[in-house]
Amino acid sequence: MTPVPAAAGRNTKSAAGRRGVGLQGFQAAGTACGIKAAAGAKDLALIYSEVPAQVAGLFTTNRLKAAPVLWTRQRVRRGICRALVVNSGNANASTGERGLRDAEAMAQLIATALGIPHQQVLVASTGVIGRPLPMERIEGGIPALVAQLSPDGFADAAEAIMTTDTYPKIVTERMSVDGDQITILGMAKGAGMIRPQLATMLAFIMTDAAIEAKELSTLLYEGVRSTFHRITIDGDTSTNDTILLMANGAAGRRALHPGDKGFHRFKEALFGIMDQLARAIVRDGEGRTKVIEICVQGAKRSREAEKLAFKIAHSPLVKTAFFGQDPNWGRIMAAMGAAGVAFDPRTVNIFFDDVVVVANGIAAPEADEGKQRKVLKQEEFKVTIDLHAGDAQASVLTTDLSSDYVKINASYHT
Amino acid sequence: MTPVPAAAGRNTKSAAGRRGVGLQGFQAAGTACGIKAAAGAKDLALIYSEVPAQVAGLFTTNRLKAAPVLWTRQRVRRGICRALVVNSGNANASTGERGLRDAEAMAQLIATALGIPHQQVLVASTGVIGRPLPMERIEGGIPALVAQLSPDGFADAAEAIMTTDTYPKIVTERMSVDGDQITILGMAKGAGMIRPQLATMLAFIMTDAAIEAKELSTLLYEGVRSTFHRITIDGDTSTNDTILLMANGAAGRRALHPGDKGFHRFKEALFGIMDQLARAIVRDGEGRTKVIEICVQGAKRSREAEKLAFKIAHSPLVKTAFFGQDPNWGRIMAAMGAAGVAFDPRTVNIFFDDVVVVANGIAAPEADEGKQRKVLKQEEFKVTIDLHAGDAQASVLTTDLSSDYVKINASYHT
Repeated sequence: MTPVPAAAGRNTKSAAGRRGVGLQGFQAAGTACGIKAAAGAKDLALIYSEVPAQVAGLFTTNRLKAAPVLWTRQRVRRGICRALVVNSGNANASTGERGLRDAEAMAQLIATALGIPHQQVLVASTGVIGRPLPMERIEGGIPALVAQLSPDGFADAAEAIMTTDTYPKIVTERMSVDGDQITILGMAKGAGMIRPQLATMLAFIMTDAAIEAKELSTLLYEGVRSTFHRITIDGDTSTNDTILLMANGAAGRRALHPGDKGFHRFKEALFGIMDQLARAIVRDGEGRTKVIEICVQGAKRSREAEKLAFKIAHSPLVKTAFFGQDPNWGRIMAAMGAAGVAFDPRTVNIFFDDVVVVANGIAAPEADEGKQRKVLKQEEFKVTIDLHAGDAQASVLTTDLSSDYVKINASYHT
Repeated sequence: MTPVPAAAGRNTKSAAGRRGVGLQGFQAAGTACGIKAAAGAKDLALIYSEVPAQVAGLFTTNRLKAAPVLWTRQRVRRGICRALVVNSGNANASTGERGLRDAEAMAQLIATALGIPHQQVLVASTGVIGRPLPMERIEGGIPALVAQLSPDGFADAAEAIMTTDTYPKIVTERMSVDGDQITILGMAKGAGMIRPQLATMLAFIMTDAAIEAKELSTLLYEGVRSTFHRITIDGDTSTNDTILLMANGAAGRRALHPGDKGFHRFKEALFGIMDQLARAIVRDGEGRTKVIEICVQGAKRSREAEKLAFKIAHSPLVKTAFFGQDPNWGRIMAAMGAAGVAFDPRTVNIFFDDVVVVANGIAAPEADEGKQRKVLKQEEFKVTIDLHAGDAQASVLTTDLSSDYVKINASYHT
């Protein structure tokens, strides 16, 4: 069975001659094969490149790496892929030797269906840890999945990788580079167990630009540092974090190289997409009622600013105060004090958006609790902490800790 | 004004000739002076030794140390104290120079009322961070506080140091040492912002044994390591953690020294009291529905076992699963993998009480989810993780993360 070629002009919203969302040479699909309990819930996704694509990836630093992470990391090292198959509803983590065999079998089933080498099929999984994959269901779902492959299938695929996410996260960016119309499409899923360590839950970015794997890898590493690596929902790092960046060159006549003006434009667009996907994950954080940017500035070292920002973002007391819309800045100071970072509390200023809260480590003389509460009533706001000790800074995007977070995670049963 | 001497035999439950709870030479009181909003809520406590007591203390490692911590730490270095005044409802933390003046003023007011040197008056505070102490209320409350001093006043004092605690925590132990009837009385408060670093929220232990400050200090340090240092509720370390151990020698004719048989008995009783107080703090953890002991054994180093146990105990996903009574062991494995400790997942076994859950890193073949759920339905249970890598172990006592924890902390307004 070979992938269904997309009918020209099938997506009437795209420019004539372009197919689907405009991303050349990629097709996608998402179906329900019965891994998730809810009838009809999509749980199997496929992304296919009509020609071999250059690929780079970053993976969880959790010592307990899921079987699909081990499979995919090994394949990505070669820098070439043709397809990516993803299931949700089961993480295929803590599943031992059987898990490894199942991840490979998923790749083999797709390879056979598409007539491509199984070494070029990447695999990702997300869901409950510790249960064997229901392979017969996955095998049963693959014919329909492959039959549905289409340049329009990315929305279905983005839906099929969701777990407790409440909406699919998909971002597209088009640009003209050296006369070529280049497209970058990214999708992600998040919701819980989100404290990415050099990667996030699942994020897949495809482009039809022509860029070599080595350069994709550098771009990915650099982009992640300021995007996926700077978000946290609950401080729990997943066993399945996977971010992949594929470039199949279908729309790029010339390969982009660092130093080119085109490369620079591509890089900006790529980082923009990574930023949007990372923000989308936080906005859809489990049970969240707020999205808060914690910005620590005036630090001696950016490593220290980052450590302080994450300590604040992980404090259950700070997070519940945000949920309660309470300007309890004492909890922020207390969290900072326990971060293992040297700083002088007497030079600390804190702002909620532009409203001063703390000056020189104590309640600001001009502090107006009414104004502070007004900021905290918003759905999104920024907390700025200035240490007045240097020029380094770091920002972390996080959520509040709500009753719904507890409800969702107490009832997301094994 | 001098302290009211206790009427002999006032506490009819104690043996004739003994006063109050049996602790010789100490008196206590607890009253309401209006720091807490609730009318009549006790918020001012006093502990008084009729003779100078030897004292040792341990304090929060939070970089942001509250004013009373700074005052008391300095005074404890001299090894002698006569009184301890404690207020609840306001932490006197992040209050700058004014906070330091207020802490000293509290000591001075008590010193004047009792006719003792103010350098021998220790101060502790607990409550909201960042608000100046209402000194006029404290000053107004002191005459009544001093007038109520009594050998029976410890229950009132234990009540007056509470914040979100739901009951006072007080433990007494009596023993005969070399013919002397020695008593140790300990009290503590906890509830939230509990991840003690070499100390806990507030714990005060008094004994009428005769022991020098230097030896009290050694005992305190050693005892804390296996008790207060091994509990966590929410991973937030307070700015006000203070633990004090006082010995006034009123019942001990001979000083106890390391190596003596009597010293060993005293040490055992003391550590027992510390253990009971630490457990009482966890049992009264904010919003908790469960008390869980996380025991990591078979580790190469105890430092690593401790790191793993705390990582599990702090994981919001593990804690919400416990709240949901859900045997979601995958979250335990995932938390361990992110702890920054090297271990081989393939040799990990996990038990809920005696029920096997994981064998060799995957679901145990004989796993019985019904039995697992039965363990998790209990109010207290033990999770044992065996790494099979060495002989080191560490246990941490913690709570679940419930909707009530969020409710309490979202509404505990500044």
